[in-house]
Amino acid sequence: MKKPIRIAITTGDPDGIGTEITAKALAKLKPQTGVSFFLWRSPRCSSRDLARIDRVFKRITVNSWPEALKVQPSSHKEIIDINSNLPAAMWVEASAQASHYGHIDGMVTAPLSKTAIKAAGLADLGHTGILKRVSKSREVFMGFIGDKFNVLLATGHLALDEVTSALTESRLDKALRAAEQLRLVLDRKAAARPLALLGLNPHAGEEGMIGATENKVHLKAMEAAQERGQKIEGPLVPDAAFFPKNWNKYSVFVANYHDQGLIPFKMIHGQES
Amino acid sequence: MKKPIRIAITTGDPDGIGTEITAKALAKLKPQTGVSFFLWRSPRCSSRDLARIDRVFKRITVNSWPEALKVQPSSHKEIIDINSNLPAAMWVEASAQASHYGHIDGMVTAPLSKTAIKAAGLADLGHTGILKRVSKSREVFMGFIGDKFNVLLATGHLALDEVTSALTESRLDKALRAAEQLRLVLDRKAAARPLALLGLNPHAGEEGMIGATENKVHLKAMEAAQERGQKIEGPLVPDAAFFPKNWNKYSVFVANYHDQGLIPFKMIHGQES
Repeated sequence: MKKPIRIAITTGDPDGIGTEITAKALAKLKPQTGVSFFLWRSPRCSSRDLARIDRVFKRITVNSWPEALKVQPSSHKEIIDINSNLPAAMWVEASAQASHYGHIDGMVTAPLSKTAIKAAGLADLGHTGILKRVSKSREVFMGFIGDKFNVLLATGHLALDEVTSALTESRLDKALRAAEQLRLVLDRKAAARPLALLGLNPHAGEEGMIGATENKVHLKAMEAAQERGQKIEGPLVPDAAFFPKNWNKYSVFVANYHDQGLIPFKMIHGQES
Repeated sequence: MKKPIRIAITTGDPDGIGTEITAKALAKLKPQTGVSFFLWRSPRCSSRDLARIDRVFKRITVNSWPEALKVQPSSHKEIIDINSNLPAAMWVEASAQASHYGHIDGMVTAPLSKTAIKAAGLADLGHTGILKRVSKSREVFMGFIGDKFNVLLATGHLALDEVTSALTESRLDKALRAAEQLRLVLDRKAAARPLALLGLNPHAGEEGMIGATENKVHLKAMEAAQERGQKIEGPLVPDAAFFPKNWNKYSVFVANYHDQGLIPFKMIHGQES
């Protein structure tokens, strides 16, 4: 039998909606052949949420990650249920470590408040911060895969006036390499398409008349990417980049800053859409 | 008979697509009861485009604005056709002046290259620059009315790293007053809705953790607007503001910078959508 893909799910703040949405999602998803789920949850979580999961999965309950690792599920209908007294932020840290060492293949995380992270004794700014620290990565990029299109953000939670100076050629170079990694996990048809790099300024700088970053940074980073064989187009005029006709033209849209990528992404893929 | 609404149409660069799209639009729109059109175009424009217009309108051809002003159309099927030797940028200036003095009620303009504006001897940066100069306005705001939602931009063609410092309380105050003017030209149902003011930074600054502008500028400008009776909500988290459920909730979205408003607006209302 092929080794199953192992996914850790952390349910986030025990007082938040994390357990409920996780339970509903699992009930809707149902057991998947070739997938093992590791569910981190609090002993305080509601019995109604557990009952929802129990309708479709058979829970194998343990109390820690070392115990969870020893479980050999005998069917894809079994879910490893980690009933943990650790603070929710530590579930993320443990899962990140498990991922880093190859014990799991992927993570799904429910919302975690900054207060909860602080209360757990961690200094990280959210999930990304924990992942960055545990993986000892110097750069971490947020990427978003959607039904319609995919986005990677070259900078993260920065105030708008810090974006331009943060967007060095080196930073953009790393973002393009990360986008290349994201491209490779897409289905074959999407992965065959070039990356799209957005300009930073209105009209992509309009030949230097509205900001010089495109000429100084984007064109050089694109050239370097092309030299190492990346297929890439840009810098695209930001306000025309996300026209629906472009969604199937590119594998990943590389946005320069948080809202440049997430306004269009969430507008189309957000839960309310 | 009620005085017709007079609309000036400038067809932009004679070598561009302006005349063609204008002719196609007029042919599709057809004559409208209570509306007089003044069409600025070059003697060099294609006879095919004129023939397109002639299928639905009766052209009354003149050669200058003073001549055009003297025409008394006898039917809404007549269109006043200004066959002008002036550079295309001057059509915009003449129409702007006519609008400023109340000779016309509105303008529709086709694309004009910066080179064409310069060649006409004007120092303006595009249509907005011409309008600002002619109307002697200290502040001009770009507003966009769409089928789904409406947007006003608090700043214009600024490089991204100039946005935060340009966004003073006074600038935002003027933008909110301009949005109020835009609101008043909407249909009654849309006009009854509050304005939506977007935050500048990711997560609208997350209580000051990602930029302080929202606390220093947005909240004060909103307070002042509310004191003078404006209905307004915000600062909204930018990447969640344009969820479709919000489109019918607000009259005008006030965006802080060009792409914050135009990425979502054009994505939904662009010609390719």
